[in-house]
Amino acid sequence: MPHIALGNDEPGVRGLFRYRPETARPLIELAEVMLRGEGPLTHGERELIAAHVSALNDCDFCYRSHAANAAAQLPEGMHLVERVRDDPGAAPVPDRLRALLGIATAVQRGGEHVTEAHVAAARAAGATDLEIHDTVLLAAAFCMVNRYVDGLATSAPDDPAMYAARAGHVAADGYLSLLARSPEH
Amino acid sequence: MPHIALGNDEPGVRGLFRYRPETARPLIELAEVMLRGEGPLTHGERELIAAHVSALNDCDFCYRSHAANAAAQLPEGMHLVERVRDDPGAAPVPDRLRALLGIATAVQRGGEHVTEAHVAAARAAGATDLEIHDTVLLAAAFCMVNRYVDGLATSAPDDPAMYAARAGHVAADGYLSLLARSPEH
Repeated sequence: MPHIALGNDEPGVRGLFRYRPETARPLIELAEVMLRGEGPLTHGERELIAAHVSALNDCDFCYRSHAANAAAQLPEGMHLVERVRDDPGAAPVPDRLRALLGIATAVQRGGEHVTEAHVAAARAAGATDLEIHDTVLLAAAFCMVNRYVDGLATSAPDDPAMYAARAGHVAADGYLSLLARSPEH
Repeated sequence: MPHIALGNDEPGVRGLFRYRPETARPLIELAEVMLRGEGPLTHGERELIAAHVSALNDCDFCYRSHAANAAAQLPEGMHLVERVRDDPGAAPVPDRLRALLGIATAVQRGGEHVTEAHVAAARAAGATDLEIHDTVLLAAAFCMVNRYVDGLATSAPDDPAMYAARAGHVAADGYLSLLARSPEH
């Protein structure tokens, strides 16, 4: 049960968006820009980084949501997402993405854990400065969202079909459709 | 030196805002809503929580920026900010604010560190659900910003006068004035 009375029974961050539409708006816009806006990483790669960081933070709702989103937008599907969760260093991803996942892993521990060596490895594997930037921001942002969702003890449904259905909506319509569902209070 | 070529010499998060205006916009809007928008916590209390979390994350630029902002907006000034940084449990703040700082401390460690006991203590000290919500989100958001700033190794000027001058601008004009300084690229 959530730590506070949300006045709605939406799971995870969606219950928080409905509870506090004033902060929901910029958070949803940030999600849309980071995960779907113009940028060098594919939508599937971004969702994979989001799922990876959420797994490191043990955030069940966010992991399951973004794993489903990644699976829906990567040709390799959920099998690859789970390989990355279980062992990102050994998962069958290109070197460039492996190096970016390494940067995301460091960001989850703390900003100062990202070293020159991480950045050099990413560059050597072909990553651009913008890809490195977007990876750091995305990983940092999920350190926020994961804490927001678990710090208020929101619910995470067990049914995998719920996450898969939501992933279909996100892949088709993006995150801004959540805005319409958060009336001002 | 920053890990990536930002193309500008603004310090801390401001250099990142200028580098990537697409993500700067929702981040700045989130800062404005969280730190200055309608809500039950005073502006000074919010900046104090932001400074506290930034200190826990060892983020020099964010700590110095938000400590200066808090000092500019709290009657007790920098002395109180430094007491909170050094020992939040013993600092001379009201019980309600001490309990909220305790929640922020837990959020910094990870969302699951926020327990029923933290929430009960905050309620017993008079905190409302909305204050608890806003504290969790604020603390979580600074776990993002701190990682963004340090994960890309941005610069933090030494001159205290720079932070004090910026604090005056923030107190007067808020965060949205940063938007005008981030041209689209």
